[in-house]
Amino acid sequence: MRLGLEAEDRADIFVPHAFDEHSVDLGEVRMNYAIAGERSSPKLLLIPGQSESWWGYEKVMPLLADRFHVFAVDLRGQGRSTWTPGRYTLDNMGNDLVRFIDLVIGEATVVSGLSSGGVLSAWLSAYAKPRQILAAVYEDPPLFGSERNPAFGHPISQGAGPMFAMWHKWLGDQWSIGDWTGMRAAAENELPPHLAGRQWPADPPQNLREYDPEWGRAFSSGSAMVGCDHAQMLSLVKVPVLFTHHSRHVDPVTGRLQGAISDLQAAMVCETVSGAGQPIDYRSFPEMGHFMHSQDPDLFARTLFDWYDSLQLGR
Amino acid sequence: MRLGLEAEDRADIFVPHAFDEHSVDLGEVRMNYAIAGERSSPKLLLIPGQSESWWGYEKVMPLLADRFHVFAVDLRGQGRSTWTPGRYTLDNMGNDLVRFIDLVIGEATVVSGLSSGGVLSAWLSAYAKPRQILAAVYEDPPLFGSERNPAFGHPISQGAGPMFAMWHKWLGDQWSIGDWTGMRAAAENELPPHLAGRQWPADPPQNLREYDPEWGRAFSSGSAMVGCDHAQMLSLVKVPVLFTHHSRHVDPVTGRLQGAISDLQAAMVCETVSGAGQPIDYRSFPEMGHFMHSQDPDLFARTLFDWYDSLQLGR
Repeated sequence: MRLGLEAEDRADIFVPHAFDEHSVDLGEVRMNYAIAGERSSPKLLLIPGQSESWWGYEKVMPLLADRFHVFAVDLRGQGRSTWTPGRYTLDNMGNDLVRFIDLVIGEATVVSGLSSGGVLSAWLSAYAKPRQILAAVYEDPPLFGSERNPAFGHPISQGAGPMFAMWHKWLGDQWSIGDWTGMRAAAENELPPHLAGRQWPADPPQNLREYDPEWGRAFSSGSAMVGCDHAQMLSLVKVPVLFTHHSRHVDPVTGRLQGAISDLQAAMVCETVSGAGQPIDYRSFPEMGHFMHSQDPDLFARTLFDWYDSLQLGR
Repeated sequence: MRLGLEAEDRADIFVPHAFDEHSVDLGEVRMNYAIAGERSSPKLLLIPGQSESWWGYEKVMPLLADRFHVFAVDLRGQGRSTWTPGRYTLDNMGNDLVRFIDLVIGEATVVSGLSSGGVLSAWLSAYAKPRQILAAVYEDPPLFGSERNPAFGHPISQGAGPMFAMWHKWLGDQWSIGDWTGMRAAAENELPPHLAGRQWPADPPQNLREYDPEWGRAFSSGSAMVGCDHAQMLSLVKVPVLFTHHSRHVDPVTGRLQGAISDLQAAMVCETVSGAGQPIDYRSFPEMGHFMHSQDPDLFARTLFDWYDSLQLGR
């Protein structure tokens, strides 16, 4: 049996973009990516969040390309990259990126990821091959808060977990169900108060069409994080870190979180990375939505440049 | 916090060997290995089984070195390689070997593994980077039978699982309990009939002293195989395979297995690899114990050479 899970098997769902797309065979997955900037510039790897694809960075890439040779990827189960049923774990996604850096980028790189991509940025900063990573950006990452049994703060079931579970229930592994109408009708009843109130459009948005809903099951069930305790991972960080923390609100009665990571959890991230001997530049943007790089590309690029310059890596 | 889990932290447990040992930093783990043979020979990577270390191959390495440049490794949690609490998954162990092939071997290699090392050989034959693997030997591998919920045949709880669970219970993660005397006394009561009757020596044998008993927990609980369904993996095999099948006996009443893999499971391995378009050379040795490469090194080497020659890879 060969699994029919390549981009060409679902070619009708994609739309054109401002950057050319490329594909590389990493062994298990064919990984899709786009490039911007000059070959002679320092390297920057951009890792999208859950339900985002590489083109979530489309608006910010021209800004980042002023200073960096930029690579934006689709992870397994995302965009045009291979869908891999049963194999959505952080460790597998992280090792895909280790291979991508080896085979495509070919030298040490700055990495920047949003949300679960930010957790992957943390993974790379701890577990990549020696000399692959120069420095890492964690953009509003659900560290601790995407675990089932975190060392600090609320678990995923009290954060975004119920939304991922709902996507999976109504859309199904590899969109095998695809009942968007049913999901819209059920959303208000199925989601807890901290996730309710969102208006779901009449048709599935492009980013969710490109997303394998099995991701949602892997994250809500906890299988994505098996073998990857965040406290242990952060204690092994080996490079300087920029951590941008966006809007968050913990309900004082239920303890549930609106946002990606609570203040308590953010403080423990900073303490753990510092304890590993690495500088962590924590910047709070309490008014900013989850996706800073697409909501305010200019602020995102300025923040990243400012931090990068402070590292004086070029000297 | 830095985890004190390197070989130097437990230096008193090791003994000298006939080959020099080396170490390479793979990013997360320092991997220990030994080399034999000429640099100009084709490459052969040897992967020990659970509770074995690289020197389980010590007797066969001089024979294999006649034809191959041989690399025998300790996996994470084994021998002198780093112990990695919470992170013993097949996918992590497999990606360690992907990095080892890149950083130490540096060219396409034949891989051969025993038992869970044989499952890793299968993993590499399916999931390694492109052009890393020439061909793969599965030496008495518990394919399907080391899963909690296999597609075919008995699960690990009806095979070696209870022994791994017993090791873990009495010895503890990272030998934190180490009650060998208690384990010896309890063994006959704790093990089911198909695993009972073994004489445990008065002191822990060298191979178990070098083994992190957390492996046993990861395999008996199933966490080692999360994200790695064997039927799916075997359907993606990309290279020719040699499969040696040793002593096995299924109890006709209970269905429990003495041995690593049943005839039914072996047949499904062959059918699945053939279905993936790869030749699989199945050889049955029903009188042979689990560890052919150390019990009959000459037969192991002859069998491997005979199969390798049949592939005509050098032409």
